[in-house]
Amino acid sequence: MLALQARKHSGKAYELSEKFNIAESDILDFSLIKNPLGTPFDFPDIYIGPEQIVLRTGEKIHQYPDNRYLELRSAAAGFVGHGLTFENIVPGNGPCELLRLVIGSVVNEDDQVIVPAPSAGQYRHIAEIFGARVQGFSSEDLLRLPKMTLDRTKIVIVENPNDPTGALISRDEMCRIAEKCAEHDTLLIVDESSIELADPAASIADMVFGNDHLFVIRSVSNIIGMPGIRLGYGIASVPMSGVLNAARLSWNIGAFEEAVGIAFLGMPGGPYCKYLSDSRAFIEKEREFITERLSAIYGFDPIKSSANYILVDVRDLFLDSLRLTEGLASQGIIIRECSDFFDGQKRYVRISVRPRDEFERFLHSLDEVFARLSREDAREKLEETIEHGGATCAGRGSCEYYPCHFLGQDCTFCFCPFYACEDERTGGKWIASSTGGQVWSCEHCTLLHRPKVAKTVLDALMADGDTDENIRRAWKDIIEPLL
Amino acid sequence: MLALQARKHSGKAYELSEKFNIAESDILDFSLIKNPLGTPFDFPDIYIGPEQIVLRTGEKIHQYPDNRYLELRSAAAGFVGHGLTFENIVPGNGPCELLRLVIGSVVNEDDQVIVPAPSAGQYRHIAEIFGARVQGFSSEDLLRLPKMTLDRTKIVIVENPNDPTGALISRDEMCRIAEKCAEHDTLLIVDESSIELADPAASIADMVFGNDHLFVIRSVSNIIGMPGIRLGYGIASVPMSGVLNAARLSWNIGAFEEAVGIAFLGMPGGPYCKYLSDSRAFIEKEREFITERLSAIYGFDPIKSSANYILVDVRDLFLDSLRLTEGLASQGIIIRECSDFFDGQKRYVRISVRPRDEFERFLHSLDEVFARLSREDAREKLEETIEHGGATCAGRGSCEYYPCHFLGQDCTFCFCPFYACEDERTGGKWIASSTGGQVWSCEHCTLLHRPKVAKTVLDALMADGDTDENIRRAWKDIIEPLL
Repeated sequence: MLALQARKHSGKAYELSEKFNIAESDILDFSLIKNPLGTPFDFPDIYIGPEQIVLRTGEKIHQYPDNRYLELRSAAAGFVGHGLTFENIVPGNGPCELLRLVIGSVVNEDDQVIVPAPSAGQYRHIAEIFGARVQGFSSEDLLRLPKMTLDRTKIVIVENPNDPTGALISRDEMCRIAEKCAEHDTLLIVDESSIELADPAASIADMVFGNDHLFVIRSVSNIIGMPGIRLGYGIASVPMSGVLNAARLSWNIGAFEEAVGIAFLGMPGGPYCKYLSDSRAFIEKEREFITERLSAIYGFDPIKSSANYILVDVRDLFLDSLRLTEGLASQGIIIRECSDFFDGQKRYVRISVRPRDEFERFLHSLDEVFARLSREDAREKLEETIEHGGATCAGRGSCEYYPCHFLGQDCTFCFCPFYACEDERTGGKWIASSTGGQVWSCEHCTLLHRPKVAKTVLDALMADGDTDENIRRAWKDIIEPLL
Repeated sequence: MLALQARKHSGKAYELSEKFNIAESDILDFSLIKNPLGTPFDFPDIYIGPEQIVLRTGEKIHQYPDNRYLELRSAAAGFVGHGLTFENIVPGNGPCELLRLVIGSVVNEDDQVIVPAPSAGQYRHIAEIFGARVQGFSSEDLLRLPKMTLDRTKIVIVENPNDPTGALISRDEMCRIAEKCAEHDTLLIVDESSIELADPAASIADMVFGNDHLFVIRSVSNIIGMPGIRLGYGIASVPMSGVLNAARLSWNIGAFEEAVGIAFLGMPGGPYCKYLSDSRAFIEKEREFITERLSAIYGFDPIKSSANYILVDVRDLFLDSLRLTEGLASQGIIIRECSDFFDGQKRYVRISVRPRDEFERFLHSLDEVFARLSREDAREKLEETIEHGGATCAGRGSCEYYPCHFLGQDCTFCFCPFYACEDERTGGKWIASSTGGQVWSCEHCTLLHRPKVAKTVLDALMADGDTDENIRRAWKDIIEPLL
């Protein structure tokens, strides 16, 4: 049998709750890429209310679902528009089931499948289950794919917008990619799971007519902010949809999912209904706000996004993506660590667009994490310093920060053992931090970089050990007399 | 792509409702093999009520399910018993998903898979999707499978109890089959989807310990009488379960299914809880009653069953299985026509055990179907008789019913155009029918088999045509004077 590992994925509030003993209700999840505006059922202009869904589920639960799913498929076709009918729709238990269905129906052992790079593991995972050779390729570069490569490729998968970058490929470009794939007898799968929250006009769902080389995937779960409901659908030409409906599991959608799907997809206006239009306006406004605030944080480099999540490059932060994610997790904040998207590089995190009060709590927690982890780093450096009887930092010439205070400074203590002393007589003071809180700045304190002071403090701590008590004593005996 | 046809399956009340314009609530479905006692939530000793399920679903729906499904898997392990833990459980969106998962993980192109014969199409369908060569084999004969055959077989599938026969293989025999498969490095899949409604003691779920050649499938949907809920689980050794949990779809169970599963599988007593014990007692009592009543119907030969459905051989009935099923459908009664289980032979129907009042309505409808279709048959024969100017039946020597009335009888009219005249002066009378209603018996009427009478009636109908009015006139002019 296959030796498979379960994929890493988002939305693990339950694990955090167990690990840090935080109530699930107190956890803020910025890793989920669900609609931040809430569900359509919380919305004033709702078409069908929760009561009717419970009622319908109760009526339908005592028999097998109608495996043709005519009502659900018609609602999905109407939602997408463009004159599609139920015959173009393949219902699925979430986008993953649809991916597995279509890839499993098309791929043979050793066929080549091109997946987006970067992307989450599901495309590679599923293609490899069916024995495909998998190549990652940036979707923006697909039009430059050599003819020879495309000729020997069975499936090209594009995610629009991309996860994790949030980049949206324009409809024009997608059309050109679709035409190129059809010319080379290659199946194009476009995963449009989040497109209603970005820009539905970028969709190429209407290109399935008479085109057996295109399969478009949509999701319901995330769009309506309820990932606990497993529901998506594929859009294809009538012949392809016919084959896939025959190949899929019988009764793959339960009565409850079916009722929710019919209620949501039947909302007049489809992707342009008030709920989704308001969702996009909300996301755009908050995304701009969050991007601006994140840009101001030292070491955070948010990447321009068209989606309801933002990829942040933390290469210049004093923490890697893993320590940052773990630090926030201990505060009850989940963000998506992205090393699995980027060949193990601990350089990116993905942060979802959430309501402003939640983002404010995120910033506050970030402040605390930065302070705590800075202190931990300083303490660790101090221990190393004492152990080695002097600075372990490169110091002078080879340190990229030298001179952080003055030319000729002593670098025995790269991190100050007395931080944050909160004593303004040193020249230090509280300033606004880039995360919006307060941070103790030592910019104007040079005490510990004076060679004699550094040596005296080092000798004292080496003799007595770097316990909190000894550090306090060194402060009192050595520093205070200098103030 | 694969040229697949959707499988035929049960539970099509919605199609009947459309075709005959009968409200779905007026349709009785004897094709569903769900628990006839109702759902556990209708039951007085219920462990967790519907309110709690709705509440839990509401709490969990805003996030992704915990893909480890620890609570659900632990509940399933506790339900099955034998010291199994969550590590032995693979959750699935119904037995079909589990079958597809395990077959897809094990089978390579051209591997041999043995499926039960007879059986519904799902085993063959799924195995063929993955390119397997499929052989049908009666499960009772598996112990006699030649060593060579078993050596080149990748998977053997047994359904216990079998659908459609309702035959239950004993635990002892199943153990021997499991041992034989393990010896030959063949994976045994036992589909125990209905075993809790037959006899849970026949299960071999406890044989998975340390055995990587066994996968046992259980269902929740049918057992709790709610096929609109898509939920089942597989039972396997810890290593096999680990692989399959990694290979299955992420979040394959939605929040609602999960809540129902935890509620049901957590009921104290597992398969021996009061709800299921009472279900089995109910099924056994009604199955005996139904079998006895069906045996008394001329042309019905019910086959001994241990399950909550009964296969009926209608070879000796004047209707084949298809006409019988269609006839009942027009009355709002669904039974399962079984030609797809038996290579197209229209010989068997499957009838589920349902509450007694529903079975009484079934018998009543059967009576009406028999009467209507007998009349239609008689009328058709009459038309043929008139068209050919004499009997189209084989008659005399070569007719297996000759002489139905007296030696030397005239066989011009094999079916009487005056049936049912309801005139006791002919010798006919009302008698009890085998379905429990009344039927007009012509056993003691010989009028139309007298050569002179037959010729006179035939001449009259050939001259004037076989309209209802002409038949009434012939009765008045020719038969009445003879009474």
